[in-house]
Amino acid sequence: MQIAFVVYDRFTALDAVGPYEILSRAPDAETVFVSGERGPVRTDTGFLAVTADKALSEVPAPDVVVVAGGPGQSALMDDEPLLDWLRTADATSTWTASVCTGSLLLAAAGLLRGRRATSHWLALEHLAAFGAEPTGERVVFDGKYVTAAGVSSGIDMGLALLGRIAGDDHARAVQLATEYDPRPPYDAGAPHTAPAHLVDALRASSRFILT
Amino acid sequence: MQIAFVVYDRFTALDAVGPYEILSRAPDAETVFVSGERGPVRTDTGFLAVTADKALSEVPAPDVVVVAGGPGQSALMDDEPLLDWLRTADATSTWTASVCTGSLLLAAAGLLRGRRATSHWLALEHLAAFGAEPTGERVVFDGKYVTAAGVSSGIDMGLALLGRIAGDDHARAVQLATEYDPRPPYDAGAPHTAPAHLVDALRASSRFILT
Repeated sequence: MQIAFVVYDRFTALDAVGPYEILSRAPDAETVFVSGERGPVRTDTGFLAVTADKALSEVPAPDVVVVAGGPGQSALMDDEPLLDWLRTADATSTWTASVCTGSLLLAAAGLLRGRRATSHWLALEHLAAFGAEPTGERVVFDGKYVTAAGVSSGIDMGLALLGRIAGDDHARAVQLATEYDPRPPYDAGAPHTAPAHLVDALRASSRFILT
Repeated sequence: MQIAFVVYDRFTALDAVGPYEILSRAPDAETVFVSGERGPVRTDTGFLAVTADKALSEVPAPDVVVVAGGPGQSALMDDEPLLDWLRTADATSTWTASVCTGSLLLAAAGLLRGRRATSHWLALEHLAAFGAEPTGERVVFDGKYVTAAGVSSGIDMGLALLGRIAGDDHARAVQLATEYDPRPPYDAGAPHTAPAHLVDALRASSRFILT
């Protein structure tokens, strides 16, 4: 089973690496990071690069597609080579997935029309412009389409998807191996639990430019 | 503030990328991935490489050191250049931290003697051989030493450490920006919650070879 993680300049590292860490441990998984061309791809902070081992054109028909989000997404909303690749890969994929603003790229490719989907809480409303039905859930399954909310939610998505792919027990074993027993030291991970002044400040300085 | 993430052949990606995603968002952070030499460093699955932008020798005195874990750790337990670098960096660091079996490298460098520390649950008992006091907590602070349990626990560690570095409100803002409101679909992330047959199976097939 080939699992392709789509990354690009200024993607958010954890969007991809969270679900990669889970899904790469599926039985017989061949996981590959792909981008417009092979080589190092720099993340949003500028402090980290991961290697795209293959160009998109070299991976035309993955079984699972996972599109990462991040500030770089906004520059790709009319990138026809990427959107074409997404449509083509989706035509034969078993699962088409995204994390964070990666769902906006799936939406821009026309793949979420009429479907329930999620995204980063700061970007959620923009899904509707592409005919998707935004929902504030952390992980949303609609047919073979799986979308996750912001950044860290890709870990939860990865486990839920791994359960569908390989069974609950395999997913539980990977959860145990990665010791995913989260204990955040604060309760501020969602806009309904975080202090209002922090929600307002993030809205005001949003790094998500969606034009 | 310079934050150095120490990676090496066959490290576990999420060990480093989890806390990187959090700590790189500290005010005035300069985050750098370091390894024995510059260039791509392949993770434990073989499916992903991240770039070490600097060699260890180029980053002699970071303010914060974070050592990742992973199966590659076992080959480095007597790697004197790495252990020497850890001792030297620790001499001037503000915080010395690890995720998963990264704590065994700190321990092998002699830095955890007499200190409370944690590691991946499968590796925890090995800390005692180096004079550390193993504790099953997910994140352990002992003076300037901060150790995290397995793989995903580095996110919790990153937030707790960011709170110490930049204050609780800044850490909460980063939690909100990364939407870290975890909702694991299973309750199997720790040996005391996972089904016993999965705990036994992982113990039997442990990928942590610690000799």
